[in-house]
Amino acid sequence: MNIKVVGHYISKIMIVISIFLLLPIIVALAYGEYKEILPFIYTIAAFLAVGIPMMVVTKGDDDNIGNKDALIIVGLIWIIVSALGALPFVIDGCIPNYVDAFFETVSGFTTTGASILNDIAALPHSMLFWRSFTHWIGGMGILVFILALIPSTDGSTFNLFKFESPGPQVGKLSGKLRHTAGILYLTYFVMTILEILLLVIGGAINGKIDIFNSLIVGMGTAGTGGFAATNASIAQFDSVYVAVVVTVFMFLFGINFNLYYLMILRRYKEAFFDHEFRLYVSYIVMAIALITINLTARSYYSTVGEALRYSSFAVLSLSSSTGFATADFALWPGFSQSLLVMCMFFGACAGSTGGGFKVSRILVLVKVVWVNLLQVLNPHSVQVVKVNGRTMSDEEINSIMKYFSVYCAVFLVGFLLISINGFDFVTNFTTVLTCLSNGGPGFGAIVGPYGGYSGMSIFTKLVMCLLMFIGRLEIFPILLLFVPKTWKRTS
Amino acid sequence: MNIKVVGHYISKIMIVISIFLLLPIIVALAYGEYKEILPFIYTIAAFLAVGIPMMVVTKGDDDNIGNKDALIIVGLIWIIVSALGALPFVIDGCIPNYVDAFFETVSGFTTTGASILNDIAALPHSMLFWRSFTHWIGGMGILVFILALIPSTDGSTFNLFKFESPGPQVGKLSGKLRHTAGILYLTYFVMTILEILLLVIGGAINGKIDIFNSLIVGMGTAGTGGFAATNASIAQFDSVYVAVVVTVFMFLFGINFNLYYLMILRRYKEAFFDHEFRLYVSYIVMAIALITINLTARSYYSTVGEALRYSSFAVLSLSSSTGFATADFALWPGFSQSLLVMCMFFGACAGSTGGGFKVSRILVLVKVVWVNLLQVLNPHSVQVVKVNGRTMSDEEINSIMKYFSVYCAVFLVGFLLISINGFDFVTNFTTVLTCLSNGGPGFGAIVGPYGGYSGMSIFTKLVMCLLMFIGRLEIFPILLLFVPKTWKRTS
Repeated sequence: MNIKVVGHYISKIMIVISIFLLLPIIVALAYGEYKEILPFIYTIAAFLAVGIPMMVVTKGDDDNIGNKDALIIVGLIWIIVSALGALPFVIDGCIPNYVDAFFETVSGFTTTGASILNDIAALPHSMLFWRSFTHWIGGMGILVFILALIPSTDGSTFNLFKFESPGPQVGKLSGKLRHTAGILYLTYFVMTILEILLLVIGGAINGKIDIFNSLIVGMGTAGTGGFAATNASIAQFDSVYVAVVVTVFMFLFGINFNLYYLMILRRYKEAFFDHEFRLYVSYIVMAIALITINLTARSYYSTVGEALRYSSFAVLSLSSSTGFATADFALWPGFSQSLLVMCMFFGACAGSTGGGFKVSRILVLVKVVWVNLLQVLNPHSVQVVKVNGRTMSDEEINSIMKYFSVYCAVFLVGFLLISINGFDFVTNFTTVLTCLSNGGPGFGAIVGPYGGYSGMSIFTKLVMCLLMFIGRLEIFPILLLFVPKTWKRTS
Repeated sequence: MNIKVVGHYISKIMIVISIFLLLPIIVALAYGEYKEILPFIYTIAAFLAVGIPMMVVTKGDDDNIGNKDALIIVGLIWIIVSALGALPFVIDGCIPNYVDAFFETVSGFTTTGASILNDIAALPHSMLFWRSFTHWIGGMGILVFILALIPSTDGSTFNLFKFESPGPQVGKLSGKLRHTAGILYLTYFVMTILEILLLVIGGAINGKIDIFNSLIVGMGTAGTGGFAATNASIAQFDSVYVAVVVTVFMFLFGINFNLYYLMILRRYKEAFFDHEFRLYVSYIVMAIALITINLTARSYYSTVGEALRYSSFAVLSLSSSTGFATADFALWPGFSQSLLVMCMFFGACAGSTGGGFKVSRILVLVKVVWVNLLQVLNPHSVQVVKVNGRTMSDEEINSIMKYFSVYCAVFLVGFLLISINGFDFVTNFTTVLTCLSNGGPGFGAIVGPYGGYSGMSIFTKLVMCLLMFIGRLEIFPILLLFVPKTWKRTS
C-alpha cells in the first residue's frame, strides 16, 4: 500500500469527525449536561492529536489512489473512527467497558443498531445524540461526506466512493463525482429533516414524542440504523402516527437514491420501472400480506388492521435493516419469523442506506436460477439475463455469484465463531445474519427486538464487530486487511 | 418429451422392482409372517399391471434418449417407484395412512432415513426389511442397477446415469457404460456384504446384535440412509464394536466410488491425492476434533475417549448423510450443533452414496472465494481455479456457482413452506437441510435423532417428500417436472 496516500485520507477524516463531535457538545449544553462536555473535548483532542501530525507528514499528492489503496483506506477509516468514536462513552463512564463502547459505536457507524445497553434511557442526552448521530454519518458513508466537501480530481477518488457505497450498482449521477456525492447527501439531508419535522409536528399535537426523540428517531431511520433513546424502541411512544411515519421513511430510505435523482430530473417512468425497485416493493408487499394473514389466522392480534400495522412495521424495519420495533416479533409464529428472516437477508436496494444482501443482487440471482432452469431444459439454446432492458455480461453475473459465494463463506465462519458462546441455534444464526445485514435485532429469547447483546462474551462481541464492518463495507475492504500482502509497502 | 422412450424405461424399472419385491416375501416366510406375504404379492401385481402393458405399448427404439427425456425418466421413475413401493405398508396396515407410507418410502429410496414411525420395532420383519432395502437400492441409484444389467448402446443412456448419480463428477470408469455401472454395483455389493459379515461375526461373539439387525444396519449404512429396525437407532445395541464398525463404513460409503476403482487398478497415489477426498477427510477430522474439545470442555461426557467416540459417530453420520445415532446430539452445546449443521450441509463426496451439497462442489466454491479475494487485491492478475492439477474452465466453475444459487433458492422456498406448520426456527431450518441433504434427523426438540416426523402436517410431509427427491436427484429432474414445457410431446 501507499502509506502516504492512505495516511492522508485518514487524517482528513479525523479532522472532519472532530468537527462533528462539536454537535454533541451543543446538545450537552442545551440539556445542562456539563459533566458530559469534557469527554467529548478529550475525544476531539484525541482525533486531532492523531489527525493533524498525520496530515502534516502525509501532505502532498492525494489523488493517486489505486484500487487496493482505496480498499485499505475505506477499511481502516471505519475501524479507526469507531475505535476513537467509542471514547466519549468510556471517558464519561456511561459505558465503562471499552469493548462494549466499541461494540456500540461500530453498531452505530455500520447502522446495525445492535446494543449492549440494558437501560438505554438512563444515558445522558448528549451521549444518546452521539450514539444516534453515528447512524446518520454511517448511513450515507463516512467518506462520501468528505468527497462531497473536499475538492479533488475525480478519476481515482471514485474508488473510495465505490467501495464505501453499499450494493453493486454505483454510478456517477452527474459528470463530477463531487457533484454526485453532493446530490446524494443533500437528498439524504432533506429527507431526514422532513421526517424529523413530521415527528416534531405530530409530537406537538399528540404529545407522544418530544423534539429530542424526534431527532433521534429521525437519524436512526435515515441511516436505517435502529438505535432509539427509549428502552422499548418505537413501541415506547405508543403512537400509531409515529409508527406510520417511521414505517414510510424506513421504506423511503431503503430505495436506491439514484431513483430520487431521476425523479428530480422528472424521469419518473425510468424510476418507477426500475427492476430492483419493483422487486423491492413486490417482496415487501408479499411479506406483509403473508405475515398479516399468518398473524390473523393464529389470532395474535384482535383485528386485521392491527396485524397489518405491526407486520408492515416489522417487515420494513427488517428489510430496510433499520431494526426498530413496535412488537416483539421473536414471539410471532414460525412462518412469520421465517419471512422476516428472509427480509433480513434480502435487505434493501443498492445505493440506499439500507443493508442486507441487496435486492439488486437477489434480482440477478433469481434471474440466474430461472435462466439456468431453461438452459437445462434446452441445452442448445442461448439464455441471457436482462436487467432494466440491458443484457448483463457474463462477468457481471459471475461477480455477483462470486460475491454470493464469499458472503456464504463469511456467514459460515461467522456462524461457527459465534456458536462458541454456547447459545442456541436461532441465536447464533440470526446474530450472524443481523450483523452481516446491519439489521440490529435477531430472533430467539436473548437477542430479539427488545433484547440486547450484553450477555455475549467479549470474543463474541468482537466477532460481531468484525461481521458488522464486513456487512457494511461489503466484505472486501475488511477481509483484505487480514491478508498479509495488503500491508506490503508501495510508493 | 418422447413418451415412448420415457414409458419404455419406466416399464423396465417396474418389472425389476417387482422382482426385488420377492425378497421381503422370503423374509416373511423365514420369520413366519404369513400375513405379510399378501401385501407384497398385491404390490408386485400393481407393478406388473402397470409395467407389462406399458412395456408392450412402448416397445421399440429405446436408446435414443435426449438430455430432457433423460431428466424426465429419472424424475418420474423415482416418484412412481416410491408411490407404488409404499403399497405394502398400507395394504398390510402397519402404516395405515398412505401419505405416511409414501413419506417413509420416499425417505427410504432417497436414503434420507427420516421416519414418521413412533414405534419402529413394532413392525414385522418383512416390512422392516423392505423399508431398509429401499435404502440399499436408492443408495446406488434405481437406474444404475438397470443399466448394469440391461444391454444397450452407450451414448444416450449415459444421460440417465449422469442425472441419477450424485455430484458433479460423473465419468465413465471404463470404456463401456454398462461395465462402469457393473463395477460400481459390484464394489457396493462387496462392501455391503463385508459390513454385514463384520456385524454378524461381532454379534455372534458379544451377543449385542442379531443377524436380522446386522442386515438392516448394513443396508442402512451402505445407502447412507439411516433407517434402523430399533427405536433407539444404533444406541439400542449398546455396543462399542457395532458403533465403530458403522462409523468406519459410514466413512467408506461417503467416498467417491471411483477412488475404489483406482485402488483396484493399483493407482493408489492418484486416489490418495484426490483433492475432494482430502477435503472430505480434513473437514471430518476438524469437526470431530472441535466437537470432542467442546463436549469435553463443557463436561458432557466423563472421558475424552467417550466424547471422541460419540462425536466421531455423529460427524460421520451427518457428513455421510446416514443419520444413525448413538447420542442425542440435539442436546449438545451450540458450537457442536453448528459444526454438525455444517457437516450436514457439506455432505459426502460426489459419486458416493452419501448426500449433502457434495465436497467436490464445496471444494470449488472455497477455491472460488480464495481466488476472488486475490483478484480484488490484484485486479490485473489472472487467477485460475485448479482441482487435481487441472485448471477448471469458466463454464465448469459457473455451473457449480449456478447450482449453488439454485440450491439456495430451493432451500429458501422449502424453508418458507415448511415454516407454515408453525414449528420453531431450528426445526424448520434443519428439516429443510436434512431433506435436501438426505440426512434424516434434524435439530430441535421434535426432529432430533431420536425424534420423528409424525407430528408434521400432511402438507409439510409432502413438501418434505419433494425436498428429499430434489436432494437425491440434485434438483433438476424434479424441478423440471413442474415446468409445463417439459410435458410438450415430441417423437
